[in-house]
This record gives sequence, C-alpha cells and structure tokens, in this order.
Amino acid sequence: MSIDADRLWRRIEALSKLTDPDRPWTRRSFRPRFLEGREWLAAEFRTAGLATGIDAGGNLVGRLAGADPSLKPIILGSHSDTVPSGGRYDGILGVLAGLEVAQSFIERGDRLRHSLEIYDFLAEEPSEFGLSCIGSRALAGALTGAQLAMTRPDGMTLREGIAYVGGRPDELGSVRRGPDSVAAYVEVHIEQGRVLENEGVAIGVVTDIVGIRRERITITGRADHAGATPMPLRADALVGAAKLIEAAYQRASARSRDAQPLVATVGRIEVSPNAANAVPGEAVLILEARSGDEAAVKLFGETLVRDLTPELAKLRLHVASEPISSVSPTACAPAVRAAIAQAAASLGLSSREMPSGAGHDGMFVAAAGPIGMIFVPCRDGRSHAPEEAIEPHQAADGARVLAETVRLLDATLG
Amino acid sequence: MSIDADRLWRRIEALSKLTDPDRPWTRRSFRPRFLEGREWLAAEFRTAGLATGIDAGGNLVGRLAGADPSLKPIILGSHSDTVPSGGRYDGILGVLAGLEVAQSFIERGDRLRHSLEIYDFLAEEPSEFGLSCIGSRALAGALTGAQLAMTRPDGMTLREGIAYVGGRPDELGSVRRGPDSVAAYVEVHIEQGRVLENEGVAIGVVTDIVGIRRERITITGRADHAGATPMPLRADALVGAAKLIEAAYQRASARSRDAQPLVATVGRIEVSPNAANAVPGEAVLILEARSGDEAAVKLFGETLVRDLTPELAKLRLHVASEPISSVSPTACAPAVRAAIAQAAASLGLSSREMPSGAGHDGMFVAAAGPIGMIFVPCRDGRSHAPEEAIEPHQAADGARVLAETVRLLDATLG
Repeated sequence: MSIDADRLWRRIEALSKLTDPDRPWTRRSFRPRFLEGREWLAAEFRTAGLATGIDAGGNLVGRLAGADPSLKPIILGSHSDTVPSGGRYDGILGVLAGLEVAQSFIERGDRLRHSLEIYDFLAEEPSEFGLSCIGSRALAGALTGAQLAMTRPDGMTLREGIAYVGGRPDELGSVRRGPDSVAAYVEVHIEQGRVLENEGVAIGVVTDIVGIRRERITITGRADHAGATPMPLRADALVGAAKLIEAAYQRASARSRDAQPLVATVGRIEVSPNAANAVPGEAVLILEARSGDEAAVKLFGETLVRDLTPELAKLRLHVASEPISSVSPTACAPAVRAAIAQAAASLGLSSREMPSGAGHDGMFVAAAGPIGMIFVPCRDGRSHAPEEAIEPHQAADGARVLAETVRLLDATLG
Repeated sequence: MSIDADRLWRRIEALSKLTDPDRPWTRRSFRPRFLEGREWLAAEFRTAGLATGIDAGGNLVGRLAGADPSLKPIILGSHSDTVPSGGRYDGILGVLAGLEVAQSFIERGDRLRHSLEIYDFLAEEPSEFGLSCIGSRALAGALTGAQLAMTRPDGMTLREGIAYVGGRPDELGSVRRGPDSVAAYVEVHIEQGRVLENEGVAIGVVTDIVGIRRERITITGRADHAGATPMPLRADALVGAAKLIEAAYQRASARSRDAQPLVATVGRIEVSPNAANAVPGEAVLILEARSGDEAAVKLFGETLVRDLTPELAKLRLHVASEPISSVSPTACAPAVRAAIAQAAASLGLSSREMPSGAGHDGMFVAAAGPIGMIFVPCRDGRSHAPEEAIEPHQAADGARVLAETVRLLDATLG
C-alpha cells in the first residue's frame, strides 16, 4: 500500500500557510481564516474524489463509499484549527493523512469493503467559547444546550458559531453516532513530546488518551515577619508546599516504568504574601495527574494529601484540596492498536506503545466505536508553538502506517 | 526609680491618634501629618523641661543637661513615623518612653551626671524616597550626596524633604557624631514577634540587630507539556525549588538553639510559565538569611546552593544565585545589655536575651557609641499592621526598665 508522500507534504505546506500573517501558525476556529482553510480543504477533498460536505455539527466530512453498504464506516481524521501562534502540524497532519490514504485507495482502484470517512472535526483546540472538541462532541451527541449557549467575548453564541462555519445547530441529532456505529476511528498526530525522538522510534502506538485530574491544594500556615519569627514558631506554607511538590514528583517518577505510567505536575503555585521579608502564610498549588489508569488518576492527589497531612501538621500547617476538573481516560481499542503495530512492522518501521498525554477528538469518538491513534515524532517535543516541526518523511511514515492500518482493519473488522 | 505610667499611656494614645483618618495608623514621614505629630511632640518635650529643637538632619531632639559637661551624652529614642496603615506603637513607644524617663528624672530632681538626649529620629521606616533610617544615618554621617538626591514620586528630593521637616541639609556636618562620641544609646521597642508573649517574658534584652542577606536564586529547567513529557524526561524547576526551600528550612531550624540563631526564609517565588498543564521551566526564589552571626549570614545562601547543585544537576536543573542586598549585623554592647538585664531584675521583671530580627536606628547610632535595645511583648507578634497592640503595663515596663538602665549607665559609664 503506497501513498504519495510529496503530495501529502505539499498539502501540509499549503494548508499551514493559510495562517494569520502576523502570528504564524494561526487558524482559529470560527474565524474567517479558518473558513479559508476549510474552503481549500473541501476543494482538495473533492479533487480526490470524496463526497464532501459540512455536517450539522460543523465538521467537514469527505466520504468514500465502501463495497459493502451494510458495514459501519471507518473514520480517519483530526482537525484544522490551531491554538493562537501554534502548531503548523498539530491537527492538519491527521486530516491530510486521512485524505491522502483515501485518495491513494481511489487512485489504485483498491476498493475497500468499509466506507471511509475523512473528518476535519470542528474546533478541537480550546475555542473562544471556552470549549474544545466541539465537532467530535457533536458526533458523540455530547453537546449540551448549555454549551451551545456559551458565548465568546464578542457575544456570539456557540450555536451561532456552528451556523457560521456552515453547520446546522438545530439538526445536531442528525450527526450523532450511537454506540457501536463506527467500525474504527484512526487518527495520525504529532507526539507533542520527546519520547519517540529520544528513542529514535518512528511510530507511537497510542494505548490510552490519558485521564486528567486537577486539584487545587491550599496549604495554610501563618504569615509572619521573617526577621522577628524564630524558626520553631513558624508555620511556613511554602515549606509545606515544597514537601508536597517533591512527594508528587517522587511518587509519579516511581510509576514511570509501569504499563500505564502516571505523570504528576505541580505547574502552578501562588504564595501569599509573596514578599522577601515575610514567612509565607498560604500557598495554593494546582496538582495535575494524568494516566491511562483511571483509578490511579483519581486517587493520586487524594492519597498524596492524606499521606502528607500528618507531616504538614507537625509544621503547624493545614492542608485542604478540592477537585477542579476530572476527565476519564479513553482506552484505545486492542484491535486497532494491534493493526497499527502490525502495519508499522510490515513497513519496516520501529514502533512503541505509549499513552497520549494530551486530549484528542478520539475521547469523544470513542463513544461511537473503537479508536486508535498513530503518533509520529516531532522536533524536540515542541507543540502548540511556532517552533513545532516535523520532517516530510515523518509525515509520510504516519500516512503509510495509517493506510496499512486501514487495509488491515478493512480486511478484519465486521 | 519610678515613672508616670498613666502619663506615658495618655501620650501614646494622643500621638497615635494623629493619624491619617482613612488608614489608621499612618503618619508618613515628610507629610503634613508627620509635622502635626512632630509639633505635638515638641510641645510635650518642652513641657517636660527639655531644650528642644530640630537638628540639621531633621531629627527632633530634646536635651536635659547633665551635671558633668565633660561626659558624653546618653541618647534615648526611636521614631514617630509609621509605615502605611501600620503600627500604633512601633517607634512612638521608644520616643515617649525616653521622654517619660527624662521627665521623671527632672520631676524627682534626680540630676544625672550625663546629659540625656531624647531623639525622634527622622524617617526610620522606608520612606517615599526609597530610604530608611534617614535621621540616624545623618547622626552617623552616613547620608551620601546620592541619597540626598533621591526623589519621591512627586519629584521632591530628599534634600528638600529634610528642609521640609525643618532640617538644614547644607549643615549635615553639624549633626554627625564621630566614633565614641555617645556614652550609650538605648531604645525601647515592641518586639514585632511572638517570642516574649509565647514565653510569658516581660523584657527582651537585644543581643544584636541581625544582619540580613538576600539572594535571588534562579533554577532553570525546561518548560514542557505536562501530559506529553514522561517523568524521566522532565527538568522541573519547581521540584528543584522545593528541594532548596526545604533544605533552607532544615538548615536554619538546626541552628535555632544557637547562641546566635539564624533564620532563613524563602518568602517569594515566581514560577514560569506557572500553568497547570506545563512543567515549570524556571523558578526564581528570594532567599533571605538573618542572624547576628555575620559569617553565618554571608555563607548561608552560598553554601546551600553549592551543596544542592549536584542533586539539582541530577534533575537536569541549573541553579545560579546573585546577591540582592547585604546588611551586616550590629552587636548590642555588653555593658548596655548587662545594664538592661540588671534593671529588669531589680524591678522584678523577667527578661531574656534575643536578637532583633528587624532593623532599627541603632544600626547607625552604633557608629557613635555602644547601643542597646529593650523589647516589650506585642500582641500575637503583629506589627506594621493596624492590629499591632500592646498593653499599658507593657509600655510602662519598658519605660521603667529604660529609666533604671539609664540610672545604672549614668552611674557606671565614664
């Protein structure tokens, strides 16, 4: 199964260059630049021979009918919107790899049993409405009325935004895919980390899109004069925070070789009064745990705080935590993972299993059927930034593995 | 030696009430409210029988001539300015206790051998010019031309400010006291901490005004996506900061029972990018060490950073520090300390030696002669805040110990 690597790279270059010129690489959802990209994409979809349109949820969909109309479709795709100033390849690689695979099948006259649908999901990145994965939520029937009423700063509602991109917000029921209505969903994406590059591995076979739990941990001591307060009389909230930060790091590090590793991060800290001459009276941390292991994600912060409470009490500190957000992990389907690994091997490409630490549309598509993701390396792990970069051969590897994966799934799935 | 405790307390109440009404208790130096307080104070000085005037450095000075004109003066005092919104008793207690002691000697007809000079030092608190201890710097001959040219936000120079309060900035040489020109300087002050209150001790005999050294410590790692970066690939600057914060706390705590204890504080931390989903790439800490032990203050931060560098390097972190400020400790004179302790004992008051963690005018007066400080407890250690509070008997204890100390020093000093 071959694909046209040059065509794929030309399309990546062409679509990425449809950017707000003053802040590359920017194509924000629900903005004119995004529609410009969509128009270009739709034309490419049609040129390739796909039946193309915008669904009610605002997704751009190109369809290649399969030989057996009784079979559920195989869906490929990703998204064409970007964060501000960020990411030439994040998203568009998956859409254009899907297009390339479909077009290659068409050109070879190699008819698939399953229909193939290529999705450019609407607004996977956090949009100005404060919501991400809007198109895949629509596909999963997960867009709520409250979400449709969310507004962006200029007052536009998400409902109006969906109409703006050509969707039909009053007909969202028509795009909903029920459970077990999709044969498989496969997405190619840049890794957004450094694991593949560091290890010289060509392909990541995603095991899970990790669950993410964030907790706000407040450590309360007593703000005191740093000169007039002897050490034994202090209740230094930052010292307590330091113990928590280090313990979180140690505990997560101890799990780094597990089949389902967990990462924990204290990325944010606010100390008050935060003055050089004052003993810190309060420290507020955001602790984030991510893993494919749902129980581990749920328990990590709770256990950490519980275990450290006695030690902090000895420092005259009170500690309290409250959950901020919690997203369950999404497992990639064993059959899809196996197909991806087999595809890579058959192409002579090295691969390894790994979790996806970032969220993707697959989290919602999984409600409709088995999903899988193919990661390709990106330079130095940079993503969501102008420095995000991949090599043409890495894009081609992803598309080739995707094509072979589709061939394998088409042959084996019911 | 008795003093009039009621008169002392009435004066404390009266002077403290000369506050900016919208933000008690505020009497900022170089402002009309400060002049109002000064006018009231000068009248009280004169009523008590002191020869009163403003010296060239802007200090309010009341003088009681001694029996032996060949002896150097004993100086008592503190300051009448406040920080914004802060401190009914900080400063004025020392000025009014000095006045009360002088007036008591006058009223008893108990003539001292030494002249007694009561100082209200100009602008002990950080002023709007960005400088503190202005009057005591003038006394020490330590006010530089560059300092006199410092401006406050409205453009007034310090030189103009000194003239505004009645000083004569062109005659600063006239107020300078050379080395060994003062028999002793004694100041009563609230502790600004909780040691005396916690231990139920009436009087603190200050051993040193501590030296203070501040360093900016920058820990550099690498900002990475918190989901896509496995623990072993991280260089988390906040984890390194946590190790430093805890080590500083442990090392200072280990010295808390030393004769010259050291306190160390990381009061300020800035993390970037400081986002819940980003591994911290940089953490900047302000480390402050205070002690009467000059070598310990100087070496604390340097040693800490040097000792932790290998451990931080293992975490792929770089650490660098640069000094921000450094003030040497000022020792209180053994003879003055002994007199204070003896005075307290003779009055049946408990006392203990302790460092002053905060700076005071004595740091500059020490250039002219031996100094000592008498601490009295304050409620819950609060200071530089509206909640700052002492009881009338605590003010009276301070003044009584001051009076007896003066009697002892007058008898023994040459």
